[in-house]
Amino acid sequence: MLDKVAPTVRPPRSGFATARAALADGADPVALVLDAADRARAAAGDGIFTALVPREEVERKAAAAAARARAGEALPLLGLTFSVKDNLHVAGMATTLNCPVVAMAPEESALAISRLEAAGAVLIGKNTMDQFATGLNGTRSPDPLCRNALDPDFIPGGSSSGSGVAVAAGLVSFSLGSDTGGSGRVPAACNGIVGLKPTLGLVSTRGAVYNSRLLDCIPIFAANVDDASEILGLIAGYDPLDPWSRRDADAIETAPVPAPSTRLAIPRRDQMRFFGDAAAEAAFDTNLDRLRGLGYTLEEIDYSPFEEAGRLVFQSALVAERLVEYDEVITAHRDAIHPAALAAIEPGRGYSAKQAFETIYRMRELKRAAEIALADYAAFVVPTVPTIYTIDEMLADPMVRNATMGTYTYFVNPMDLCAVAAPGVPARAGLPSSLSFISLAGCDGVVAGLARQFQQAD
Amino acid sequence: MLDKVAPTVRPPRSGFATARAALADGADPVALVLDAADRARAAAGDGIFTALVPREEVERKAAAAAARARAGEALPLLGLTFSVKDNLHVAGMATTLNCPVVAMAPEESALAISRLEAAGAVLIGKNTMDQFATGLNGTRSPDPLCRNALDPDFIPGGSSSGSGVAVAAGLVSFSLGSDTGGSGRVPAACNGIVGLKPTLGLVSTRGAVYNSRLLDCIPIFAANVDDASEILGLIAGYDPLDPWSRRDADAIETAPVPAPSTRLAIPRRDQMRFFGDAAAEAAFDTNLDRLRGLGYTLEEIDYSPFEEAGRLVFQSALVAERLVEYDEVITAHRDAIHPAALAAIEPGRGYSAKQAFETIYRMRELKRAAEIALADYAAFVVPTVPTIYTIDEMLADPMVRNATMGTYTYFVNPMDLCAVAAPGVPARAGLPSSLSFISLAGCDGVVAGLARQFQQAD
Repeated sequence: MLDKVAPTVRPPRSGFATARAALADGADPVALVLDAADRARAAAGDGIFTALVPREEVERKAAAAAARARAGEALPLLGLTFSVKDNLHVAGMATTLNCPVVAMAPEESALAISRLEAAGAVLIGKNTMDQFATGLNGTRSPDPLCRNALDPDFIPGGSSSGSGVAVAAGLVSFSLGSDTGGSGRVPAACNGIVGLKPTLGLVSTRGAVYNSRLLDCIPIFAANVDDASEILGLIAGYDPLDPWSRRDADAIETAPVPAPSTRLAIPRRDQMRFFGDAAAEAAFDTNLDRLRGLGYTLEEIDYSPFEEAGRLVFQSALVAERLVEYDEVITAHRDAIHPAALAAIEPGRGYSAKQAFETIYRMRELKRAAEIALADYAAFVVPTVPTIYTIDEMLADPMVRNATMGTYTYFVNPMDLCAVAAPGVPARAGLPSSLSFISLAGCDGVVAGLARQFQQAD
Repeated sequence: MLDKVAPTVRPPRSGFATARAALADGADPVALVLDAADRARAAAGDGIFTALVPREEVERKAAAAAARARAGEALPLLGLTFSVKDNLHVAGMATTLNCPVVAMAPEESALAISRLEAAGAVLIGKNTMDQFATGLNGTRSPDPLCRNALDPDFIPGGSSSGSGVAVAAGLVSFSLGSDTGGSGRVPAACNGIVGLKPTLGLVSTRGAVYNSRLLDCIPIFAANVDDASEILGLIAGYDPLDPWSRRDADAIETAPVPAPSTRLAIPRRDQMRFFGDAAAEAAFDTNLDRLRGLGYTLEEIDYSPFEEAGRLVFQSALVAERLVEYDEVITAHRDAIHPAALAAIEPGRGYSAKQAFETIYRMRELKRAAEIALADYAAFVVPTVPTIYTIDEMLADPMVRNATMGTYTYFVNPMDLCAVAAPGVPARAGLPSSLSFISLAGCDGVVAGLARQFQQAD
């Protein structure tokens, strides 16, 4: 056990404001971008990136953006950099899912990426991930292992491990990941940053390699809620070419808004699990006290439907969704694939169509149960993760401890909810705790507003 | 072949107006209801009803409604009668799916039925159907066969055969059925009445025995569009206890409204099939001329995505949905089940969960294709059925000719569309033709408005 008492570490909170202050002081946006690219290059052996954009291409794109800005174009993301999980297509770069033998060569970038580039941001690289996005811990990856940005003995969280670490380490201004069962929130929790998981269908998933078309979305990692919400505002919207895009996406408020009520739901304590991590439970209580101090009333609700919905993500016919995309490649390249990724994908072969429909029916029932349970609350507040493990601890029991990380994240997508994870007080080994603010589809602005208020009260 | 030239027959068009005129003239609502019940009882051997409500119970309920009206309560359906397909639960009556060995004894009536009774309508009986709602022709049924209301040599259409015939024969004021692939429209077309198939989730399906939870809804059969829309207005609305109820159901306009455009889409003629029925094709053209005479412009669109969506209903993993409800009973009572019903249900066993998800993905893509294809039109107009068969013809080739009946109805539910079928000019053997007006989810008032205008122009 590595339960050392470390000095409390924090990733930079200032986010976009730092670069913008520099620009306001006359800094060259190209120099800002190249500085980030150089720092990313210096970290190339740290398992954060699967590939970096060549320096000359970064420079060329940064210069082009600066020229557009000088010509009078408003570029909200001028001088900012980002990276994306390696299951999002970038034209001209391989999409590997962190499994090089399955590399794809996309002709077009994901729509979200194109929109960010149009807004002036410059892509620095593609991020490491748990192979095939199967995992919540970050160790299901070829060497070198991606490590926690705040304490290298600890897991980075997954599956968007590199995307979370790149932001927490200050290598990029923000990043994109993917989220099926918590991959856009767990790395944020492990690395003390913000993870914003939008309502399903709010951000086009065109150009994303699917794990689950029913559950997948593109989350945003950033230093603070305002930054994450600003990015959401730029990439959200109806996309007729993505059949999973919501027809009402353009009508959904993405900016943080005041909560419609001071009532917040929390799980019944006797149904909560922290897996023996007393520091995590104490941190959760302190975080709740902060919310009370902000004027919110916390009311316990029955957690059992949420727990059941969470189990569907990895213990039901839904796992067969992964075969739609991956069946051929795992058959053709079995030896080149991480055993834990195989163990997450192959059980899908055992399910019948009847079982798939039974699962879909139950998922619909549980979605309605969430709508009813949360109807009177501004949000549902849970710890984003129940505990955190060292890399050694995770590798000693990788399947069980991986599932542990999803205790409070798995249910969100099957119930069609949105969530923002924001860092709280220190927990185990001085690593930050995290609260997730969760609400019904379309309430993205409400959960962002709550998370912003919570983070700013620190 | 029975291609005799019969005198053109028509079911009564006046609908609710007849009973209301009688009430206005001082008729006793109890007597009106009992008269209908007695006529239904006289037809008890005609294969239209699986069960009739006992006369004394009809009288008691009619008297109770009349008493409420006398006490000042506004009962919009006072003096009117209805029947329901035998896959809708009625408290105190068996639900048999027209397969007596699987009879269920429900404690509560379907919500739609309770709402109609609250509005003063009196239930007369439960209607024959193609067993397990598997079929579009009406002959997949134990004896006595249900026959077309206008010519007993012809099929009544299915699977809501008895519900269509009961209205067309004037035995009830209106009826409810179920519609997965056209069962709420084909019997309307065959019997010269109106079939209104609402947007999925607009009418609560609580208390309906499912064929397909993804596709099923409760349609309305009536003599004219105003009557059908009036019933829809009474049974539509959000039902938190039905997980498939639309959250925005209360905001959807159910009353007929003017079309938002004079542009109507029709299928490209080279993609249309009438299966050699020249009278049906000629009737379709005459019906289109009537629309042109009303000021509409007709534009041909590509029918292939609609045809593909239609095939999903009976040639994809979706057929495995039926096993969720029926697997146990068809295993336990195999010998008591109609061979065509077994042939429709059992192939579901051959599909994997992966195939189920692939089908769901394709269905979503085709839904988006329909949204894009129909975006500029007030509605898509197709013949409800491509032809009609005699009972002998149907029994000679029951699988192929059954599927033929769904040529223009199957695609509607997988693409999440709404539809109203209304009778047109005479076709084969003087039986009426029918046009279906189809539009996107939530446009129920628009298609009702078009169908109403079409029917009234006759």
